[in-house]
Order: sequence, then structure tokens, then C-alpha cells
Amino acid sequence: MEGKLKKFGFEVSEKIEKDPPSYSIKGVVSFLNEITNEDDRRLAISLGLGDPSRFKCFRTTAIAEDAVIEAIRSAKFNSYAPTGGIFPARKAIAEYLSNDLHYQLSPEDIYVTVGCKHAMEVTVKVLARPEANILLPRPGFRNYETFANLHHLEFRFFDLLPERGWEVDLDAVEAIADENTIAMVIINPGNPCGSVYSYEHLSKIAETARKLGILVVADEVYGHIVFGSKPFVPMGVFGSTVPVFTLGSISKRWLVPGWRLGWLATSDPTGLLRKCGIADSIKNVLGPAPLSPTFIQAAVPEILQKTTEEFFSKTIDILRAASALCYDKLKEIPSITCPQKAEGSMFVLVKLNLSLLEDIEDDMEFCLKLAKEESLVLLPGVTVGLKNWLRITFAVEQSSLEDGLGRLKSFCERHEKKP
Amino acid sequence: MEGKLKKFGFEVSEKIEKDPPSYSIKGVVSFLNEITNEDDRRLAISLGLGDPSRFKCFRTTAIAEDAVIEAIRSAKFNSYAPTGGIFPARKAIAEYLSNDLHYQLSPEDIYVTVGCKHAMEVTVKVLARPEANILLPRPGFRNYETFANLHHLEFRFFDLLPERGWEVDLDAVEAIADENTIAMVIINPGNPCGSVYSYEHLSKIAETARKLGILVVADEVYGHIVFGSKPFVPMGVFGSTVPVFTLGSISKRWLVPGWRLGWLATSDPTGLLRKCGIADSIKNVLGPAPLSPTFIQAAVPEILQKTTEEFFSKTIDILRAASALCYDKLKEIPSITCPQKAEGSMFVLVKLNLSLLEDIEDDMEFCLKLAKEESLVLLPGVTVGLKNWLRITFAVEQSSLEDGLGRLKSFCERHEKKP
Repeated sequence: MEGKLKKFGFEVSEKIEKDPPSYSIKGVVSFLNEITNEDDRRLAISLGLGDPSRFKCFRTTAIAEDAVIEAIRSAKFNSYAPTGGIFPARKAIAEYLSNDLHYQLSPEDIYVTVGCKHAMEVTVKVLARPEANILLPRPGFRNYETFANLHHLEFRFFDLLPERGWEVDLDAVEAIADENTIAMVIINPGNPCGSVYSYEHLSKIAETARKLGILVVADEVYGHIVFGSKPFVPMGVFGSTVPVFTLGSISKRWLVPGWRLGWLATSDPTGLLRKCGIADSIKNVLGPAPLSPTFIQAAVPEILQKTTEEFFSKTIDILRAASALCYDKLKEIPSITCPQKAEGSMFVLVKLNLSLLEDIEDDMEFCLKLAKEESLVLLPGVTVGLKNWLRITFAVEQSSLEDGLGRLKSFCERHEKKP
Repeated sequence: MEGKLKKFGFEVSEKIEKDPPSYSIKGVVSFLNEITNEDDRRLAISLGLGDPSRFKCFRTTAIAEDAVIEAIRSAKFNSYAPTGGIFPARKAIAEYLSNDLHYQLSPEDIYVTVGCKHAMEVTVKVLARPEANILLPRPGFRNYETFANLHHLEFRFFDLLPERGWEVDLDAVEAIADENTIAMVIINPGNPCGSVYSYEHLSKIAETARKLGILVVADEVYGHIVFGSKPFVPMGVFGSTVPVFTLGSISKRWLVPGWRLGWLATSDPTGLLRKCGIADSIKNVLGPAPLSPTFIQAAVPEILQKTTEEFFSKTIDILRAASALCYDKLKEIPSITCPQKAEGSMFVLVKLNLSLLEDIEDDMEFCLKLAKEESLVLLPGVTVGLKNWLRITFAVEQSSLEDGLGRLKSFCERHEKKP
């Protein structure tokens, strides 16, 4: 038995202390959490993950809790759900997304998934045809690469431009696309950048995609989480120019990432995707895939229709203040440059000026030493495709944010090169 | 755009009325549901799927509902769960499974999945090494083939023997195994057979697997759902003879398949799997995979520890009576042979004597005509690997079962060859 397992390559992998798992944000963050200083009397602070739900000020609305509880108590939703989700959930998501469009999505355009990450995987699997390739943003969200690797879909990177508010370098998109390019991914509001794209920029993306004959995959998991001057415009607005796969979830706007309820929507007013049988491809992928629990799906109509503006504004106000605090405090640190104040999502991406620091070689070493010396966890940029940058989550309680940014400042001061 | 999509093989598939999707039980059952006679004044009856939760007599316990509701209300479980599940859930599942073993599973042996079907997929992915093959029971549960195909794992079938209570044909197992065989799957209590394996038979399976140097994957999603003379014995009891992957869930015993909470457990008292780094392989597969919602995981300790024997017995009593009713009524139909009364799970597998029927060529045609003429849905055996058999689910309300079996009898009488 043992010999056979070894023959097939099962063996205990050698674990090297200094080499955190580089394949996932979750892996890196939990590695960094583990090495925070145990002797430090201060509590560890994590500004690593986009999950504010552990803080009281980010508790979800009672409307969402009540809706799920009512669905459980009814005992009507203990059965298996059909592939793609139960009809009332699909209908409610279609209506919710259509509120921001000039056309109506139908329930048939909606596929309920086990969170947005699952919608990413489904998308990648649908597009993973032999020879095909997709274009991914850099910096971006590592899961797209992970799924593309898992499902053998070639990917190529285009840059986002920090000096232009992290807009897509559309010349780069045109340069790397070829006749086998099938789609490009955008993440708006931006993770890890905190950017929000203007109507004009999204329009240009749509035109470029149309010209190249490719789909746009719009990751809008942070949809409506905007607190700067620009409103949130869903990519689906340009669905007549180019068909869009819209990915979303209740995780961020309702502050319940642990509920694992997401969706993939085909924003396709011209019917082009339908004509090409994309629906069948999506259903084929979803058939054997895990399903979101039926009673959570059953709660979706109440959640999407009844949540008050007041609940949303409270979150937005906290995030706006947190983003501003973050921006102001970072300005006081010479070895860190923040190209723009975050206007959306829960993150800001900042540049390390390594030439001003001593005994720190790169962003990973910076984060390792920061975790050990200050019990503070930040995400090294290399994890999101940009070496020697840092992603800072400001979606935490104000006191933790202030404390964390203070520790960051002390750390940088201590490691600054002496003149 | 359209040309490019076509180039990559996206196109609307031709749908043929008479050709139900053959790839999944769910697909076949929903196809049959769709063709039930609309003009029939009687309600359609489905004895197709193992999901009794839509019947009042199969409502889950208030203890399970309360546990989930309490977890939601606490607002402590809205965050992402770690890969493998939250510790209290893993610990509770380890203790629950250890109740039936002579050794203790540790929380590290448990991986929480999005239902048992997801545990199947994780298992197949872990075992899907180049050149490796696994052995599957015939009749069996189609999902194993689906996942093996998806993840490029070769599979071979061994027969279950109806004349011996659907026991494994161990000679066949030895005959088809080779040096690349890595595991064999057993489903006990049996789906689709309604069988329950004795301690002695399981012991022989363990010895055979040990001799062949292969793992046993024990699908125990119907664990404890037994109502005949034999008790439920988990395969893990033989973990010292051969390491076991135990798959399970709360879906069946707690009557909540829509809650999607399952597990994969490594029943490995000798530590052989751990020594070979199986844990790392499982974690690698689970890392990018969907997760069970955190608040459902949080309810698991209460659910597993607090549910009363009374609740379980009530279900078992209903199923015992339903199985007996089914057996008795089927005896009245000459064109159907039932090799043994179901003693576990929620199904019985019966043989069609086609020579006694006219204008029916096979089990699929039988089920198509039955759905159209009697608005009754049964599962054709071809879907579970045994052509010209039928799987009948008896986990429905008694009135529906009686009505359904009556329709089946009328149908068979009407189609019997005239002498």
C-alpha cells in the first residue's frame, strides 16, 4: 500500500519555514498570522484579507439574518436545488442587477454559485477550450491564475496603470490578444487597487473587447462598494457593445463572505451568448459542481429587495473614513508611496521604496519581518502580481486600523537607512 | 465574436425529445418529470430521487434548525472558513464517527465539504494520478464515473451480486485490479441497492483491499439508515487492516440534503495515509474549492451531539414500513422481480422481466412510457449501471408510495403480453 502511494507521488512535502505558500492569498495571510510574535503583548492585527465581518461595526443587516432564518423555519428549502439555482433566487438576482442597466436580465441569465470564487471557477471552466487564452489584469486576483492553471486555460497579463488610477492599459490588451483570445477579465471596483472605473473607461474597454472579438468577464464582487467621486457602473451597461459575464455575490456588500452565495450572470442583451449555446456550457459545468444551500438561496429575494439604503450607507461611510485615514497616515511614511486614495473595494495598493530601507530585500521579507516584529499582517504585492508593493485592507475597526498603521510607521522608521 | 465562440466549439446543442440526458440521475429524473402527462388529473409522483425532505413526515429535527439559527444570530460565523472547515465542526465530526470505532479520529482527519457529492469529487481528484485507476461498484452511483471522467482517472467496474444481497464480487475485484489500482469504492448502506453489508463481508473487503495494496473509499452517506436485521458497520472499523476514506454528510440521516454539509474522513489508525502526505494532497485539492457556509459548519457540533434517538427512530420506522410495503406490492407484479427487500438507504433495485412485456424495449423506454401514461417517475437502471432494472425510492409519504406502486401495477398489467 505504502509503496503504491509513493509510486503515485504521494509523499510528505518538505516544509521550509521561510517559504510561505505562494499559491493563494489565504495561504500567505495564514502563514503570516502564524508567525506573528507570540511574546508580543499586543494583539496581532491583520490587514490582510477582505473580510470585515469579524468586526462589530461591520455586522450584516438583520434583514439578511431574518430572511435566512425564515427560510430554515419554513422547512420548505431542505431539498436539493436545481442546477443554476432555485427560480426565485435567479429572478431576484436578475432584477437586482437590472436596476443598474437599461435592459432587463432574465432569470435564465443567472446562475447561483457557492460564492463569487466559485463563479470565477465556473467561468474559467466554461472558457477553457483547447488553444484558447484569456487576458488577466496585473495586479489582480490570484484565483484567476489558479483556476486557469487547474483547468488548462492559457492566460496572459495586461498591466493596470497606477499613474492613471489603475486603469487598464488598453494598448497592452491589444498587443497581447491574438486570434485565440476569448476573454479579458476586469475587476471593478478594484481588488487589490481600490480603484473605481469611470463610465468612459469602461466604454473604452467595451470598444476594445468588441474590436478584438472577445468577451469581458467583469468581476463585480465589490459592486456598489464605492466612496469616492465616481459612481459604480456595472460593465453590463455595455452589454450591447460586448457580451459580459458578470460575477458577483452578497459577500461584500452584505458583509457575509462566509455565507457563500454568489452568481454568474450573462449580461447579453443582443442574445449573442445565447445564440452560441453558452447556457448549455455553463449548465454542463454546473451540473456536477457543488451547490449553494437551498435555504440560503431562498433568502436571496428578501435580502436583495428589502435591505435599506441606511445599512449600505453606514458601511460606505465607515470605509470612506477608513480609506482617508489610511491615505493620510501613509503619507507620513517616506518609504511607502500611495499612488491614489482608494475609492472603492476595501483595499489600497502601495509601493515600497526599498532604496530607503535597509536589510529588506523585497515585499515578502518586509511582510515577514513586519509580522514578526510588529504582529501586523499585510499582504505582499507579489501575491497579487506586483512585486514590492503591499496590499492594505482598511475594512477593519478604526482602532485596529490606527494601531496597525502606527505599527507600520514604527517598523518603517526602524528599518530606514541611516543617512 | 460569434465566429470566435463557434471556433472554440460553443454552439447550441441539438436537443432530441426522446433522448434524456444520460450523464446524471438528476438530469434523467428532471427529464422524466417534465414529460409526465399534463392532462393527467392526478398529481405526478416521483419515486426518482433520494430526497424525502419535501414530505412533512420527513421534516428535520428542530435541534438542527435551532443550531443553524443560533449560529446566524450570533453573527460570529459570517467570515470565511479555513480550508478543511472550522475546528469545532471537524472535532464534532471526528467524535461522531469515532462513536462507532474502537479508535479515535482526530479533527485533523476530517475535511468539511459542500455535501457528500463534493467529498466524492475531492476524493477522485486526490486519487487522480497519471496511470492510476480505481474500481467502482456496478450497480453504483453515477457521480463517481462523472468525476473520474472530469479528472482523468481511469475506472473499472466490479459487480455487486443480487443473489447474495448485493455483496461485492471479490473475485471480480481481484481479477480487474492491477499494479496501478489505487482504490476501490463501496457504498454502504447501498445506493441503489438498499443493501447493508455484514461485519463479515466488510472484513473480507478489507482483506482483499489489503492484499491488493489499495485504499477503500467508503461512501457512507446513508450511514445508520438501516432497518433490517443487520446493524450499520462503518468501514473505518477495519482501518487497521486497510486505510479508508470515509465519505458522509448530514443530508440523509438529518433529512437536509439541501444544506450541503458533508465530510471526507481519513480513517487511518496506523497513520499510513498521514505518512504518505495524503493530508497535503487533500488540502491542495480543497484550497481553491468551494466551502460549506461557515454558519452551517458552526451548527454541526449541536446537530451531531444533541439530536435525539427518538428523531432517528421515527425516520427508520417510516422507512422500514415503506420498504416492506414496497416489497409486498412489487410481488404482485409478475413482470418485476425484487431480489431482496431493502434493509438500508432509501431505495430498492428491481429487475424488469421484459419478456413478459410487449412494446417495451428496455428500462429507459419503460420509464418514459410510465412517466407519460401514469405520471410516475422511476429511475431506469441504466443510470446506475444496470440496464433493464429500476431503482425505486420508497422514502416518500405512505399515500404517495401506495398510489405510485398502484400506478406501476396498472402500467405493467396494461403492457403485459397477452397469452
